[in-house]
Amino acid sequence: MLIKNVTVLTMNSNKDIIENGVVVFDDDIIIDIGEESIIKNYPNHEVIDGKEGILIPGFINAHTHCSMIAFRSLGDDVPNRLKRYLFPLEKMLVDKEIVALGSKYGICEMALAGVTTFADMYYFEDEVAKSTKEIGLRGILGETIVDFIAPDAKKPYEGLEYCNWFIDKWKDDNLIIPAVAPHAPYSSDTLHLQKAFYLAEEKDVPIIMHIAEMDYESEKYMNEYNLTPVQYLDSIGVLNSRMLGAHLIKVNDEDLEILKKREVGISHNIGANAKGAHGVAPAYKMYNMGLKLGLGTDGPMSGNTLDMFTQMGLVAKIHKLVNNDRTIFSADQILEMATIGGARALNLDKKIGSIEIGKKADLVLVETESINMQPIYDYYSVLVYSANSSNVSTVIVDGKIIVKDKALLTQDYRSLSNEFKKIKDRVMTIANTL
Amino acid sequence: MLIKNVTVLTMNSNKDIIENGVVVFDDDIIIDIGEESIIKNYPNHEVIDGKEGILIPGFINAHTHCSMIAFRSLGDDVPNRLKRYLFPLEKMLVDKEIVALGSKYGICEMALAGVTTFADMYYFEDEVAKSTKEIGLRGILGETIVDFIAPDAKKPYEGLEYCNWFIDKWKDDNLIIPAVAPHAPYSSDTLHLQKAFYLAEEKDVPIIMHIAEMDYESEKYMNEYNLTPVQYLDSIGVLNSRMLGAHLIKVNDEDLEILKKREVGISHNIGANAKGAHGVAPAYKMYNMGLKLGLGTDGPMSGNTLDMFTQMGLVAKIHKLVNNDRTIFSADQILEMATIGGARALNLDKKIGSIEIGKKADLVLVETESINMQPIYDYYSVLVYSANSSNVSTVIVDGKIIVKDKALLTQDYRSLSNEFKKIKDRVMTIANTL
Ligand SMILES: [Zn+2]
Ligand SMILES: [Zn+2]
Repeated sequence: MLIKNVTVLTMNSNKDIIENGVVVFDDDIIIDIGEESIIKNYPNHEVIDGKEGILIPGFINAHTHCSMIAFRSLGDDVPNRLKRYLFPLEKMLVDKEIVALGSKYGICEMALAGVTTFADMYYFEDEVAKSTKEIGLRGILGETIVDFIAPDAKKPYEGLEYCNWFIDKWKDDNLIIPAVAPHAPYSSDTLHLQKAFYLAEEKDVPIIMHIAEMDYESEKYMNEYNLTPVQYLDSIGVLNSRMLGAHLIKVNDEDLEILKKREVGISHNIGANAKGAHGVAPAYKMYNMGLKLGLGTDGPMSGNTLDMFTQMGLVAKIHKLVNNDRTIFSADQILEMATIGGARALNLDKKIGSIEIGKKADLVLVETESINMQPIYDYYSVLVYSANSSNVSTVIVDGKIIVKDKALLTQDYRSLSNEFKKIKDRVMTIANTL
Repeated sequence: MLIKNVTVLTMNSNKDIIENGVVVFDDDIIIDIGEESIIKNYPNHEVIDGKEGILIPGFINAHTHCSMIAFRSLGDDVPNRLKRYLFPLEKMLVDKEIVALGSKYGICEMALAGVTTFADMYYFEDEVAKSTKEIGLRGILGETIVDFIAPDAKKPYEGLEYCNWFIDKWKDDNLIIPAVAPHAPYSSDTLHLQKAFYLAEEKDVPIIMHIAEMDYESEKYMNEYNLTPVQYLDSIGVLNSRMLGAHLIKVNDEDLEILKKREVGISHNIGANAKGAHGVAPAYKMYNMGLKLGLGTDGPMSGNTLDMFTQMGLVAKIHKLVNNDRTIFSADQILEMATIGGARALNLDKKIGSIEIGKKADLVLVETESINMQPIYDYYSVLVYSANSSNVSTVIVDGKIIVKDKALLTQDYRSLSNEFKKIKDRVMTIANTL
C-alpha cells in the first residue's frame, strides 16, 4: 500500500519532515518514504489519498488500565481515592465480563484516537489481550500482582501464577507482548517483588510497575530503609532495562542517575498526576538526560481520556508553568515523547515509534480540514496545541487499516456503550456505598 | 421551538438536572423547562430531538482576541514573546483584511465549539463586530487602546477616538455590546486609563483590560507607587462593576477584597497563563469569595484553541495540582464558571448563562454518541474530563440555530482556511525576521 498527499513527520533522529510526501509499505513493513516523485516506482500499489493531512507514527500510550473505562466519570473528585474508593470498588465490581467489556471499549477509543501501541496492567489481563487482538492494536499487557485478595486472586500474590500461565499463552503472538506487573513497591513485599522480577527474567518479558507516585510510598521507604522508592527497588535488584516504571514523580537527582544507569523505561502520566494532585515528575530533566521517556494516560478513572493529544497539551502547559519558562518542552519534543519516546521506554524503538524504512507500518493520518487544524505555520504546534483526538482520520497497525475516515473497522463500539447502560444501576449502587 | 430527549443541566442556582428533559423557547426567550410530560402543552412547536444528548447553557468565553487565529501555531515556544515577538509581528502584519478574516474564522471555531457569547479586544474591532453579526454570536467587543502606534492607530491612544465612533455605531445592536479596552495598566499612562474609564462611564459600556498578568507589571507599580496593579487601578478610580479584568494572576488577599468590593468581573485564562509560564491566578479562592468569575481562552496565539472544554479540563488539573488537593474545583463548579460565571463577569447573568424561564435561548447540545462520552455516571465529569469541542452537535444563539449536526449554518469556514493558505508565505517571511 502507498499513502500520498501527506506531510510526513518521520520522527526519525533528524526529525525529517517531508511535505507532499509518500510512504510505501508491503504487508507490515515500511519499504519506502519520499516525495511525490517516488509514486511512479510503485505502479501496482493500492493508493490512499491523505488529502493534505499530517502523517505521524502511531501514538504509544505507555501506561494505562484501559478496562477501567467501565467506571469513567465515577467519583472523580473524592479524597484518598485509591485506597478508600478505588480498591473497594474494584473488589466489588470487577469480574471477567467487565474487564472484557471495558478493555474492548477502551481499546476502541485508543484506536480511534491514533494510539497504535499501549502498555496496560490490570486484572483478568487475558481478557485485555483478547480484546487487543480482536481490535488489532499492539499491547504490552501485564497481569497485576498485589499483596491482597484481588478480583482475580483468591489469595495474595496469586497474580504471579496467573502471569506464568498468561505469558506462556501469549508469548509468541505478533501483536501482544505479555508482561509481569506488580502493582507498586508498597503493595508487594520484597520477596514477591523479586519473584516477579525473576519471573520476567525467566520468561524474557517486560515488567511494569507504578513507582514513586504517592507520598505515603516515599515515606514508607524513607522510614524503613532511609531510601527513596527507586533506591529501594535498586537495592533489591529489580531495576533493569526490562522495567517500565509508571509515574516516577517523587525522584531526586540520584534516582534519575539510577534510572539512567539501569536503563529503566518511564511513562510520564501528567494528566492523571495533576488531577490526582500527586505532583509533577521532572520530565524535562529526564528528557534532557536521555532517559527512555514516553507518555501515558493512566487509567480512565484517573485520566478520563486515553488519547495522547490531551496528554501532549498538558505536558506543554504544566511543565512550562512549573518550570516558569515558556520555552521548555517544544512541541516537537513532546510529539517525540508520544511516539518514539514511548517506543524507547518499551524497548521497541527498533521496530516502531518512527516512520522509517524497515519499521512496522504503524501509521496515523491526522486530517487538516477541521476548523481547529488551520492555519498551519508549524506542524508540531498544531498537533500539540490545537488538535484533538477527533482529528484522527486513518489508523494503520502492522500494515492493516483499523480506522478509515474516522470509523473503526474492527469493532462496533456503540453496542458496547449499550452494555455500559445495562450495568449502570449496579455500579452506581455500589459506588454510592463507598 | 422545543428540544426534547435531552438531559438538561440548567446551571440555575440549585444546579437542577432534568433527565429526559424538555426546553421550550419562543423566538429568543426560554418559556418552559420540564420533563417529557410538558411536550403535550406545545402541540404546534417545532421539535428538535436531542437524541439523549446533554443540553447546557451556551459557553461564555470571557476573554479572547479571536482575530489572532490568523497567526495560530506561529512561534509558540519563543522567549519574551509579547514584547519581542508579538507586538512587532502585529505592527507589520495586522490590517483590516486580516482582522476581518481572522475574526470570522475564530468566531466560526467558537460557534462550532458551543461558545455562544465571547468577550474580545483587538484592533479594527469594527471588523470583529461585523463578523460576529454575520455568524450570529453574542460579542462584548472592545477596541484596544495603547500608548504606542498600533495597526489601526497612527498615534498613541488613537484607539480612544476609534472607541468613541465604534461604540456609537454598535450601541443598540441586539447581539453586540461595544466596549472600551485599554490593553493593560502598563501600556497606558494614568491620564489615559482614566479617560478610557470616563468614556466607558459616559457611554455606559463595559471596559476590558489585562490586569496583573506580568511580573514586570507588578514590579513597575511596586517601584513607582508601592502598590500592586489592582491597588494602583483602584487608587486612580477606574475599578467598578463595568470592569472586566483578564488574568489577575499576581494578586494578594487585599487585591481580592478590592475586586470584590468594586464588583470587578474576572476572566480566568488558565491555559494561556500556564503556556506562557505566567503563573496561576488564585481562582479557587476567587470562586469561594463569590467573585464574578468566568473562564477565557485568551487569544489563539496564547491559548491556541477557543473552546471551553480545553479550559475546563485545565482548570481542574492545574488547580488540583498547585493546591495539592484532588477534591477542589469539582466538575460542576467548573462548568458553572464556563457558563453562568462568565455571565456574571460580563454583567449579563440576568439574561444569559443558565437555562431558566425568561432567559435568552442560548443553548448547546452535546451529543453522547461519540466514544469519549460514555459511560455517564456523572454528567459534569463527562463534560469537564472527557468531552471535547468535537462533541458539540447543536448550537442555538438568541433562539436561532447556528450549528446543526456539527455543521455551521451561517458561514463556510473552509473558504476562510484557503485564505490563510494564501497569506502563509508573507506571514512566515515576516515572522522569521523576528
Ligand atoms: Zn496506573
Ligand atoms: Zn488577552
